[in-house]
Amino acid sequence: MDIDPGFLEFESRLSRPLNLKIPDLQHGGRLRHVLFASQFNLPLLDRLGKVADRIRTIAKSREGHRFLNSLLSHKRAMLYFSQPSTRTFLSFSAACQILGIACNEVRDPATSSESKGESPLDSIRMFSSYFDLVIMRSPVSQFAECCAYMMNELEQEDRRSVPIVNAGSGKDEHPTQALLDMYTIQRAFEFRHERDSSQWSKYDEMRSKYPNVRRGIDHKIIGFCGDLRRGRTMRSLAQLLALHQEMTMIFIAPKHPSLSMPDDLKQLLMDSGVRVLEADSFETPIGGVPVIEQLDCLYMTRIQTEHNSAQDKVDFAAIDFTNYKLTRSLVQRMKEYAAILHPFPRDKEFGEIPPAVDRDPRAHYFRQARNGMWARAALLAHIFDVDGAISDYYEDYTKRKPLAPP
Amino acid sequence: MDIDPGFLEFESRLSRPLNLKIPDLQHGGRLRHVLFASQFNLPLLDRLGKVADRIRTIAKSREGHRFLNSLLSHKRAMLYFSQPSTRTFLSFSAACQILGIACNEVRDPATSSESKGESPLDSIRMFSSYFDLVIMRSPVSQFAECCAYMMNELEQEDRRSVPIVNAGSGKDEHPTQALLDMYTIQRAFEFRHERDSSQWSKYDEMRSKYPNVRRGIDHKIIGFCGDLRRGRTMRSLAQLLALHQEMTMIFIAPKHPSLSMPDDLKQLLMDSGVRVLEADSFETPIGGVPVIEQLDCLYMTRIQTEHNSAQDKVDFAAIDFTNYKLTRSLVQRMKEYAAILHPFPRDKEFGEIPPAVDRDPRAHYFRQARNGMWARAALLAHIFDVDGAISDYYEDYTKRKPLAPP
Amino acid sequence: MDIDPGFLEFESRLSRPLNLKIPDLQHGGRLRHVLFASQFNLPLLDRLGKVADRIRTIAKSREGHRFLNSLLSHKRAMLYFSQPSTRTFLSFSAACQILGIACNEVRDPATSSESKGESPLDSIRMFSSYFDLVIMRSPVSQFAECCAYMMNELEQEDRRSVPIVNAGSGKDEHPTQALLDMYTIQRAFEFRHERDSSQWSKYDEMRSKYPNVRRGIDHKIIGFCGDLRRGRTMRSLAQLLALHQEMTMIFIAPKHPSLSMPDDLKQLLMDSGVRVLEADSFETPIGGVPVIEQLDCLYMTRIQTEHNSAQDKVDFAAIDFTNYKLTRSLVQRMKEYAAILHPFPRDKEFGEIPPAVDRDPRAHYFRQARNGMWARAALLAHIFDVDGAISDYYEDYTKRKPLAPP
Repeated sequence: MDIDPGFLEFESRLSRPLNLKIPDLQHGGRLRHVLFASQFNLPLLDRLGKVADRIRTIAKSREGHRFLNSLLSHKRAMLYFSQPSTRTFLSFSAACQILGIACNEVRDPATSSESKGESPLDSIRMFSSYFDLVIMRSPVSQFAECCAYMMNELEQEDRRSVPIVNAGSGKDEHPTQALLDMYTIQRAFEFRHERDSSQWSKYDEMRSKYPNVRRGIDHKIIGFCGDLRRGRTMRSLAQLLALHQEMTMIFIAPKHPSLSMPDDLKQLLMDSGVRVLEADSFETPIGGVPVIEQLDCLYMTRIQTEHNSAQDKVDFAAIDFTNYKLTRSLVQRMKEYAAILHPFPRDKEFGEIPPAVDRDPRAHYFRQARNGMWARAALLAHIFDVDGAISDYYEDYTKRKPLAPP
Repeated sequence: MDIDPGFLEFESRLSRPLNLKIPDLQHGGRLRHVLFASQFNLPLLDRLGKVADRIRTIAKSREGHRFLNSLLSHKRAMLYFSQPSTRTFLSFSAACQILGIACNEVRDPATSSESKGESPLDSIRMFSSYFDLVIMRSPVSQFAECCAYMMNELEQEDRRSVPIVNAGSGKDEHPTQALLDMYTIQRAFEFRHERDSSQWSKYDEMRSKYPNVRRGIDHKIIGFCGDLRRGRTMRSLAQLLALHQEMTMIFIAPKHPSLSMPDDLKQLLMDSGVRVLEADSFETPIGGVPVIEQLDCLYMTRIQTEHNSAQDKVDFAAIDFTNYKLTRSLVQRMKEYAAILHPFPRDKEFGEIPPAVDRDPRAHYFRQARNGMWARAALLAHIFDVDGAISDYYEDYTKRKPLAPP
Repeated sequence: MDIDPGFLEFESRLSRPLNLKIPDLQHGGRLRHVLFASQFNLPLLDRLGKVADRIRTIAKSREGHRFLNSLLSHKRAMLYFSQPSTRTFLSFSAACQILGIACNEVRDPATSSESKGESPLDSIRMFSSYFDLVIMRSPVSQFAECCAYMMNELEQEDRRSVPIVNAGSGKDEHPTQALLDMYTIQRAFEFRHERDSSQWSKYDEMRSKYPNVRRGIDHKIIGFCGDLRRGRTMRSLAQLLALHQEMTMIFIAPKHPSLSMPDDLKQLLMDSGVRVLEADSFETPIGGVPVIEQLDCLYMTRIQTEHNSAQDKVDFAAIDFTNYKLTRSLVQRMKEYAAILHPFPRDKEFGEIPPAVDRDPRAHYFRQARNGMWARAALLAHIFDVDGAISDYYEDYTKRKPLAPP
């Protein structure tokens, strides 16, 4: 898709370094627009994780669900997905429903007014006329960013302006995927279990088996496997993890220019103090121990064959990909508390994670999907400033709970 | 569509006889998953019919509508229709809205993650991550059944699991169509009328004209006309009707292997004690009286020309189909209380029921469509165990009604 | 698309003059079906404008929004858009959501039952089985009208019947566009401003600069520019404006049989007492002053190139269209209070209104879009007879407001 001439107006802003852009997307200590994973810093990730936890707990009761449902029932959202993505779409839609936000959608650009010559920015401004939030996924890089700048200008002119949430834009950013990945890893390393009691806790059991293990993300060894160059997901996630202390990251991918870890990202991570390692397979020994046995967390990805060049196709035929696929027996050699994630969909033909692994307690990828719904609900609650009301209700709710179980 | 290798896991369960499967789909005396028309037995049909009647009555008042609307407002449904069907889709959507269930939909499989190599079972499990109910229509036989088994396994492993409702699967089953057809026939033979009073009742009037008529489905003569072999609707309905006493069924169709009554079904019905007759036309005399004058209920169907083979096309050109089309004058010869049903859509070119019949009081097919909404709402209320709350409200409501009419 | 044979039944009604049809579409002093812009007379336009203003004000507070949301939460609407239109669709959808009406949609006729041979009237009757309102947009002229007559007949037979709202039908009518245009012009000539006070008001300022200006639409000079023949919008709007006193209308378009003002409309307007003028460009002097400097309101339209014939393409290449495009400097020569409208989408290639004009206070076209939502919500409130409840709440609300600001 060609860049729209309307974007030129924002050219100087688009070409700034990322850290200069971030203040433009905030509003009184809150995110106003969500465009970049790097808008999430550690305090904010912690805060959003807590809100997500509270929403999840409150939603367990019917009464709590209704409280949530009433919070933003005066808001209407537009989900504008000109690039298809069922999972992200449905997860945002569910998040809106949880908070009572009425959803509207345009998924097929062919039916939109753009076929009558309308500019993409006019389309977004139309959406902002009817709706209170635009969640957008687009194949065009920086389109969401332009929209956010347009909204900022409208606000300055005292005209109607609404928040923009990037649900995946071109090849560059997919911030809410990074948010849900971080939330899933946070939760995994809380080592909580529903049977935790004063007699037994999962954390105590794990410490008895792995004396060095500690709560939280600091000090953990994270593996990334698969399509490390073309998956925008991994790129954002690695940078957010790098905000933590004493991280080790092991990148497991074929040594091929379309798949292996990009040098710029490696450098970025090392500059943040991450210990960066590369491996050819799960069996590569690191300090004498095979990678697979050392990981606290393994982030698997799908080989994005739809982006293969002609040359890629030829090259890939010569690669032994079995080194980059999990098996039940590999998983059984992992630490007992290790967490396996995958942004999904997984590829049933390729089989990077065979269904036989699904029942292993280390498989976190289905709950990761569900976490996407809670994390996105938390983000929307944050944007619309109802996270305080959620905390108040939660406090009340957990006090009452022993007396009146849901 | 090829069978997904993921289905193989369930092969032994899929090949069991139907009666062994049914207990797997129940949960504490309630339907958990709805896959087969034969899950409905007479007590359940009676119970669901009563719930549907109550919902219909309560919904007449604005206050009652709001009560219903709040019942399941903490639930979210996925309507996954990879085989299109406007009527079934809209009817389920309306049923959900009546009970306050938030709806989500995937109607176009091309936009789904399956295009990225995702297995159909992964897609369903994703839906179950975000939603509390999956209503699915698929061209693949037994797909819904596999999903139900997967959900049962997840439940056994204490993982998230949701009910599966089959909204039409391949050529085999469309249980909620059978449910709404039964509900419509139940209501037709209650002989109730809104002008019923102590002075006059429709039932009394009918008995004065047809002394042998009795309330209920037992003893009735039911005609089926049209495409009796390729319409899954008719097959399920006939078997549910066969649960009643002293039934007569007359099958009216051309003697052609693609259209006429299948022998196995004929045998099945006779084994259940049904008196089975076949006729070439509405005029075929049975005991000296033309079929059309004897029927208590006539179930018309559309010739599903989209399933014609090349040979069918040739053969059908030689058939005189006028024998299988209603006319106003045929209808006027039917019993006054007879009920004409059609699962719809009807074919305006073929004209199995011309619009001229629509105003006849025997035409039940439009209210049959609306019954689909009530019957499906009743089914969802049953699955989520709020039918008791509906009964309580109804009791209250009908007591108050003379004092405070809606 | 061919006329459906089912329409023939209504032929005698379809061929009546418009004024004889209007009473058929009313119900106890209210609109029942909305098909024609000419159903709106001045008192009704005034009434709907007031309801829209009240809804807009009430919706500013969360509490008010919830009141509106509960008004019609017992209603379900079908948006049947077999001709695509994102803007009209979304605006109706937002209007429904504001009043709590649950929305359902069929946008793709390929997925509908019509592909199985169903007649269009059967489809509409199916919708009316499940939903309480059908909002429809169709490429077929008079289809919505047939549907309204069908609904009237059903009502007479005591069968289920619902209101039909025409959201654009063929080339002839788009009444709710006319309604929102009128509402926008009404508001523009109220000369209200949010900073109005006893010290300063916008109206006083304008009167000091333009001594002859008066509140209201009477006496105004309205320009129409662009595609005056193929845009149904302009046709309806001109006729509604003609209901006012002492109107002047100036039509600015190339002298080409596909674009210029139709003679029949010109005559109609003159018969209503409108002073009708034509101009070649914004610079054409009228009484010695260029048109652009005289206009109180300018209604711009898009050249609908998708309807060009082969001959049009040849002809248009020879026309200098720069005369029919606004520029920033043209706009700056307009009266300070003048209002520029455009039904949108505008054509970014053609550029009838360049984005540089958007920030001018005379640019009303974005708020015009948002007015569409309020005006449609007002219309739905009128149809379902809840405008009285809105007025009552509003009165209460504005009384309380100083004490408890939203």
